Amino acid sequence: MKITLIRLGKLHLPFAQSGYDEYVKRLGHYCKYKDELLQVNSKSKEVNILKRGEGEAILKRILPSDFVVLLDENGKNFSSTNFATQLQQWLNQHAHIVFVIGGAYGFSEEVYARSNFKVSLSCLTFSHQLVPLIFGEQLYRAFTILKGEPYHHQ
Amino acid sequence: MKITLIRLGKLHLPFAQSGYDEYVKRLGHYCKYKDELLQVNSKSKEVNILKRGEGEAILKRILPSDFVVLLDENGKNFSSTNFATQLQQWLNQHAHIVFVIGGAYGFSEEVYARSNFKVSLSCLTFSHQLVPLIFGEQLYRAFTILKGEPYHHQ
Repeated sequence: MKITLIRLGKLHLPFAQSGYDEYVKRLGHYCKYKDELLQVNSKSKEVNILKRGEGEAILKRILPSDFVVLLDENGKNFSSTNFATQLQQWLNQHAHIVFVIGGAYGFSEEVYARSNFKVSLSCLTFSHQLVPLIFGEQLYRAFTILKGEPYHHQ
Repeated sequence: MKITLIRLGKLHLPFAQSGYDEYVKRLGHYCKYKDELLQVNSKSKEVNILKRGEGEAILKRILPSDFVVLLDENGKNFSSTNFATQLQQWLNQHAHIVFVIGGAYGFSEEVYARSNFKVSLSCLTFSHQLVPLIFGEQLYRAFTILKGEPYHHQ
């Protein structure tokens, strides 16, 4: 069970980083979790050029056999229980699941074309700073649901 | 423009508290924001007794003229822009808006009966520890949208 999170750009709010770190630590008990922070230093302010550069950096990290799930505002909205069930299906079918959090302006067309699935965390837009933390907690929650552990109660 | 957030139970994860504190500080620039932490010490493990006790504590803090919005999983899902528009309408119509984050098991019937509106942050269930932080960021985002400030870009 190997899961990687590819994300773009450092977390500059200290609580966002330490919160994410907490869930990364917890996730280590359930899967082989890898955090992959990409730093794309583009001088361009043109959104499409930025997105293309970020997209190339993302695609370089992805193998043909990886199952790629984008965190995207137009993705599927799950309940936590349904997300856990979906995660279990992916884990059964694929050796390596790669989740990707894009840059502030979203993904390039090339990344969309390569992706296998899109998940939305909410109809609301959350700060880029908070997404790794929120996603990390949700992935941790999914594993506790799959293991029948008392963290999640509905 | 007076907004209160009533919430139950201390945040024991340090990053959850410092993250929420950050958005409380930012919110102070846009409205008269009050954080109201309630601590209900019930020895009961019976969910309905717990909820009733929490509900009584919440209702004691609410005045008849307050506009009460519950953060509830069955509430309305907004985009951030639509939430900002809704917030502006409430601010136009009511002197004091009270948002309420319930306990781990949700709200008592009495609190539901008193409420004026329900908002959902996501179809996903988020940790109780994270909800003040996530909601604080969203309220801050709403004010930046209403002011036309560059924080939110879509």
